[in-house]
Amino acid sequence: MVMKVHGSVLSPPVLRVFAALCEKDLEFEFVFVEVKAGEHNKEPFLALNPFGQIPAFEDGDLKLFESRAITQYIAHVYKDEGTPLVCEGKPMATVSVWMEVEAHQFEPVAIKLQWELAYKPKLGKVTDAAEVEENEAKLAKVLDIYEARLSQSKYLGCDCFTLADLHHLPALTNLMGTQVKKLFDTRPKVSAWAADIMARPAWAKVLARKNQH
Amino acid sequence: MVMKVHGSVLSPPVLRVFAALCEKDLEFEFVFVEVKAGEHNKEPFLALNPFGQIPAFEDGDLKLFESRAITQYIAHVYKDEGTPLVCEGKPMATVSVWMEVEAHQFEPVAIKLQWELAYKPKLGKVTDAAEVEENEAKLAKVLDIYEARLSQSKYLGCDCFTLADLHHLPALTNLMGTQVKKLFDTRPKVSAWAADIMARPAWAKVLARKNQH
Repeated sequence: MVMKVHGSVLSPPVLRVFAALCEKDLEFEFVFVEVKAGEHNKEPFLALNPFGQIPAFEDGDLKLFESRAITQYIAHVYKDEGTPLVCEGKPMATVSVWMEVEAHQFEPVAIKLQWELAYKPKLGKVTDAAEVEENEAKLAKVLDIYEARLSQSKYLGCDCFTLADLHHLPALTNLMGTQVKKLFDTRPKVSAWAADIMARPAWAKVLARKNQH
Repeated sequence: MVMKVHGSVLSPPVLRVFAALCEKDLEFEFVFVEVKAGEHNKEPFLALNPFGQIPAFEDGDLKLFESRAITQYIAHVYKDEGTPLVCEGKPMATVSVWMEVEAHQFEPVAIKLQWELAYKPKLGKVTDAAEVEENEAKLAKVLDIYEARLSQSKYLGCDCFTLADLHHLPALTNLMGTQVKKLFDTRPKVSAWAADIMARPAWAKVLARKNQH
């Protein structure tokens, strides 16, 4: 039975799951959830995720939600397929640290900047300049720490590409289409890292699949 | 070489790490970081965590930060000691989902309620009633989902106590000393779960160690 990802291709957490599946070269079925019509807050979707948030995921009888729990499942259970996205023992501890950094330091700021600079203009809403300024300053501090980290290690978690890097891809790609790109361009290690992970063939497959919908 | 936890016992994420160590019955040294004096934003602390947040952790040469990465390290690397706090394969996927739920659904709301109802009164600051009302409503929705989950499963992640439960302990204990207790009391499964995990001997050890400082 083929795995299923429920959601919308406009959602960064949905694309995060696509990225893990494409790195593993695993087939999956995409089940569109019409968020505009509120389908995520109704049955049958609530049976997959009682919090009413996309994505939700099925692998046979197993039903999961929360994008980073899904990518970890894919990485651990399909560890012998495609790209190894995790490692074992002590090196994994450092990968976990940087996965937490993405979730708690990078994403909260990236969500606000994507909303102000990528989504609001498309929706005809006015960007809040003070919110942008505040969050650009926060992102700059995070990226300064990434710059130092990427001077010690090729990727964030270790010298190999892992989930700690992969989890950034959807927001990173959105932000590169906005004025926030300058914060990456002025940091050579961060800029090279972003270019490297965005150029991965699996990410190109994700974007191609996104554009089909 | 004994493990070290750097931080303050007033910090819920620091107590989360204590809880994992006590469940594993592992010895550790506590290194006090004087947050009031800004020690977390200076060297030598920044060498342990460039984000300047407590806790930081050392096990020999390995240096980690982000409380949930530290607890996962303890659970995986010391898996044969004390309480098993994780499991393997597909059941672990569901434990991971509920660990993400704690981090992204429970904690953001719990942080705001602890600040308004537990910390502000001690600091002589005025509680913001609108902020409390908004976050109590959000917490009620989260706890409704926990009530349903705990009707299917003894603990959040599976039928055993895991990190998915443990990560809640510091905030849960703080909230039980506030008016928010009523949101737990009115939900029988949630209330029994909270009482059960707060009564664990390892948690009593954490609170005893907290009170030493």
